[in-house]
Amino acid sequence: MIYGYGRYNDEYMVGVIDADRDLFFPLKGIYKKRNTEAPKDMNELIDTYDDDLYAGIYDEIKKDNDLEKIPLRQINLLSPIPYPKRSVFCLGKNYKEHIQEMQKFTKTDDELKYPIYFSKMAYPCTGPDDIILRHANATSQLDYEAELVVIIGKRGINIRPEDVEGHIFGYTIGNDVSARDLQKRHNQWLKGKSLSTHCPIGPWIVYKSLIPFPVELDIKCFVNGELRQDSNTKHMIFDIPTQISILSQGIELVPGDIIMTGTPAGVGMGFDPPRFLQPKDKIECVIEKIGKLTNYVSE
Amino acid sequence: MIYGYGRYNDEYMVGVIDADRDLFFPLKGIYKKRNTEAPKDMNELIDTYDDDLYAGIYDEIKKDNDLEKIPLRQINLLSPIPYPKRSVFCLGKNYKEHIQEMQKFTKTDDELKYPIYFSKMAYPCTGPDDIILRHANATSQLDYEAELVVIIGKRGINIRPEDVEGHIFGYTIGNDVSARDLQKRHNQWLKGKSLSTHCPIGPWIVYKSLIPFPVELDIKCFVNGELRQDSNTKHMIFDIPTQISILSQGIELVPGDIIMTGTPAGVGMGFDPPRFLQPKDKIECVIEKIGKLTNYVSE
Repeated sequence: MIYGYGRYNDEYMVGVIDADRDLFFPLKGIYKKRNTEAPKDMNELIDTYDDDLYAGIYDEIKKDNDLEKIPLRQINLLSPIPYPKRSVFCLGKNYKEHIQEMQKFTKTDDELKYPIYFSKMAYPCTGPDDIILRHANATSQLDYEAELVVIIGKRGINIRPEDVEGHIFGYTIGNDVSARDLQKRHNQWLKGKSLSTHCPIGPWIVYKSLIPFPVELDIKCFVNGELRQDSNTKHMIFDIPTQISILSQGIELVPGDIIMTGTPAGVGMGFDPPRFLQPKDKIECVIEKIGKLTNYVSE
Repeated sequence: MIYGYGRYNDEYMVGVIDADRDLFFPLKGIYKKRNTEAPKDMNELIDTYDDDLYAGIYDEIKKDNDLEKIPLRQINLLSPIPYPKRSVFCLGKNYKEHIQEMQKFTKTDDELKYPIYFSKMAYPCTGPDDIILRHANATSQLDYEAELVVIIGKRGINIRPEDVEGHIFGYTIGNDVSARDLQKRHNQWLKGKSLSTHCPIGPWIVYKSLIPFPVELDIKCFVNGELRQDSNTKHMIFDIPTQISILSQGIELVPGDIIMTGTPAGVGMGFDPPRFLQPKDKIECVIEKIGKLTNYVSE
C-alpha cells in the first residue's frame, strides 16, 4: 500500500496510490461507502491505522470499478505529513564514505561509536516538485542530502532493536537540505539544517509491508541530471533497528514521528572545490521501491 | 495579562489569571457572554490574539463580579503550550559565567561570535509541579538549567533586531533539563536535551506589556531549597533582539514558537565534583515578574 496526501480541486485529501503510481483513490470515497469518516490527514491515518481494515480497503480498490479514483498526475501531491507533530529527527554521518568526504568540514572519528542525532525544523515540510528557497541573505553554501526516511507507526520508548520493525509505519524519501556555512558558524547544526523550505519529504509513504526488512535499497541523488550520490541503505553505519532503538532510549517515539536516516557520500561539500547548489538547480532523490522526490532551487 | 492553560473538573481550558495569581477566569465564560467561541488552547489564543479585544476582556474581568472565576489553586495548571507546533528552539552558552563553568565539559571560545541554537523535542512539555523522569536506563548525569522563555506572537522572517519586540507574545519560565552524558556521547546535543518529560515550561505566560523591554529580570534556580543559579537576564551574551533576529534569518518564526534563551552559571555540571540531580529532588526556577516553575525528579 502506498499513501499520499494532496490537493485536488482545492480540497486536501489522503488517498491510496496504486502499485503502478497511476491512480489516486481518495480515502473519503472509500470511507463514504462504509458510512464512517475518513482520516483528514496522514497523521490521523497513522494514529488510527489498522492492518485488517486497510487490507480490506486494498481489496476493494482492486475489485470495485465504481470507486472514485483520480489520475495521480492531476493531484497536487504535498509532503505526506506537511506539519509533523514535532520536528524531524535526523541522523548525521551515518555512511562511512560520507564521514570521509566531510572530514575537511567537521572532523569526527572515522569509526563513530554512537549515532549523531540532530533535528530539522519543518513548518511545513516541502512537497514534491516544490521550490527550495535559496535564502541568499542567510547562506551561500546550500547543499543537498538524499535520505531514506522512516515514519513511526506505533508509540514506544526503550524499544529493543528486534522490536523496531513493529514500530515502523512506512518509508519515504527526504532531502536534508543544508546551509553548510550556518551549520558550522552556529556550532550546533540546527540553524543550518532548518531554513524555511529546506525539508523536502515525499512524494508518498510506502507501507512497510512492501519493503523487506532489513531495508536494503539503492539510493541516488541527481543534480540537473548528473549522478552525485549513489549507494545502498545497507551501507548505513547504524542500521534502522540500531539507530531507532538507541534514539528511543529515554525518548518516547509517537506515531507520525519522522526519522531521516542519514545521507551517503556525494554531497556538494564533499567535492574539491565544493559544488554547492545554484539558482534553478533540479535535485532528484531516488530510492528503489519508493520513487523519486524532485525539487528545484529558487532563482 | 497573564494567560494559563489547565484542567478543572476534567475539562481543559485557557484562562486569564489575575495580577495577584489568585483567580483563574476561563476564557469560555468570557466568550460565552459575547456569543463567540473561546480559543480552545493557547496556540489558538495566540493565533487569533487581538490587543483591543483582550484589553476589553481585562476591563471586564476587573468590573464584572458575575464572571465565572475559579481559585487558581483548584486548577491543575499544565504547561501553557503542552504540544508546541514544532520543537522548542534553545540557546546554548548564552551567559558568560556559564561558558566558563562548562569549559571542562564542551570547550568553546570564551567570546562566542555567533549564537548556538539547538532544539529540544517536547511531546508534551512538562507542566508545573509535574515529574521529571530520571530515565536511569539512559542517563546518570541529569542536570537542570533555569531559563527565560520567549513565546512568539507574530509570524516573521529576517526580523530586524529593532522589530523583534513586536513579534513577541509573552514570557514564561523553562527548565532545560539535560542528560550531560548523552549530550556529549551523541556529539550533537539533541538526544541529551530531549528525553521524555525533560522540557518543563510554565507555569503561565505573562503578556509582553507587563515586562519592560529590554528584558532585565532576576533569574534563580533552587535545588531542594539551595540557591544554585542566581543571575539576571541582562547578562545574556546575545540579548533577545539579537538572538531572535539572527535565528529568523532564513527561518520563518510562527505564532506559538517557543525560544529558551539560555541558562546562567550554576548548573550541576559546573560544580567540582558535579552535582547531578538525584531521585525526588525538587527544582524551582524563579524569574522576577513571572513566577516560579517547580518540578520534581522521579524516584
